Amino acid sequence: MSIDVTIWSDIACPWCYIGKRRFERALAEFPRRDEVRVTWRSYQLDPTVPDHDHRSETEYLSQAKGIPVPTVQQMVSHVVEQARGEGLDYDYDSIVVANSRRAHRVLQVAKVADAADGGHRADALKESLLRSHFVEGRDIGDGEVLVRLAEEAGVDAAEALAALDSSEMEEAVARDVAEAGAVGVRGVPFFVLGGKYGVSGAQPPEVFRQALDLVAAETAPALISVDGGAGEACGPDGCL
Amino acid sequence: MSIDVTIWSDIACPWCYIGKRRFERALAEFPRRDEVRVTWRSYQLDPTVPDHDHRSETEYLSQAKGIPVPTVQQMVSHVVEQARGEGLDYDYDSIVVANSRRAHRVLQVAKVADAADGGHRADALKESLLRSHFVEGRDIGDGEVLVRLAEEAGVDAAEALAALDSSEMEEAVARDVAEAGAVGVRGVPFFVLGGKYGVSGAQPPEVFRQALDLVAAETAPALISVDGGAGEACGPDGCL
Repeated sequence: MSIDVTIWSDIACPWCYIGKRRFERALAEFPRRDEVRVTWRSYQLDPTVPDHDHRSETEYLSQAKGIPVPTVQQMVSHVVEQARGEGLDYDYDSIVVANSRRAHRVLQVAKVADAADGGHRADALKESLLRSHFVEGRDIGDGEVLVRLAEEAGVDAAEALAALDSSEMEEAVARDVAEAGAVGVRGVPFFVLGGKYGVSGAQPPEVFRQALDLVAAETAPALISVDGGAGEACGPDGCL
Repeated sequence: MSIDVTIWSDIACPWCYIGKRRFERALAEFPRRDEVRVTWRSYQLDPTVPDHDHRSETEYLSQAKGIPVPTVQQMVSHVVEQARGEGLDYDYDSIVVANSRRAHRVLQVAKVADAADGGHRADALKESLLRSHFVEGRDIGDGEVLVRLAEEAGVDAAEALAALDSSEMEEAVARDVAEAGAVGVRGVPFFVLGGKYGVSGAQPPEVFRQALDLVAAETAPALISVDGGAGEACGPDGCL
């Protein structure tokens, strides 16, 4: 049976990308990795970010959160260092401040396409959105950028374009955010393994491995039969 | 967290409808029923059934399975009696022998639409397909019938029509059937609760309740936090 991992995360979220890499490192060493099925859920840390903002990320953070610039810079250098430790070359000077809601809508349409054919578009798009934002200085609030990234991830371009301002996809985003609240998520990244074990934040790979092992121990490769015998059923030889 | 129930079943499967009712009875009494999320998976008991066949169900079963007519009739009266016990008025004389593959494709497109907006079209369609086949004597191999039923269940008529002969939906059906094989399903209905507990056949409601209770005991309403503390994360006040 599959081992389900649900990950709530945002795009403009430095620890989400770092946490993704740490989870992936744990997964790479996990013997039953082929059974793991990841579901990306939307979360918006700051829905009030303007669609486009010409301030630098540092200025924006300082002004929006009321944090002195030197404190923001300290935070940034810590994040940049931790990212580098995961092979991620964050370029804070090039970051384009943008609201992530349209990116999340496109992610939702990628999930719908995946549900239809078992594809992995959402995985690919999540990765390229984070890379675009933190490494490549691309504007993840821009419709053209989003459609191009979606297309590269295997999403139909027309569907990605329609998703940008789709109320249906917006509702899918809102459902994810609401469920995060119900589960008790107060920050991201937030991982739920096997519907049961919560891992908050970009923990070291060992913590993810511990959680994966807990789920694996409880998720036997074979089913546990309730009531032992088979009830009345239909099989290849009929319904007798 | 949600309690996942996966149900493999076919349409032309008398125990699938009876099992559905028995599961529903257990669910109605289950305190955490609002957390239960059912996923219908496709299964084809007999992919060799012709698209349309003018024999009666009894003749077909006898000739296709090589079972003497009196034995088939005995089986049928047992099934009819059990169905009646669940409030289902099976009418074997009116059953139209048909291949269920196009019905499954339409069910798959209903699931895709549900995935996009959290709807319950697949539930509604599964119910109406079974009722159409066993109670109302409608031809579930007929495209017009299928599109009408899908529309009544909230599926877009054009999407239902396209699904009838869609290779993409056929692949979704094939994936479900393949996964059934991997899980060890040898007959239907087959229920998997919490990704772990298997219930084979139309068991009495008490068995479903027992399995639901087992999953509930292991699926605490609150998450179990791995590593206790929170890792580095971004929250409403920033990423510090």
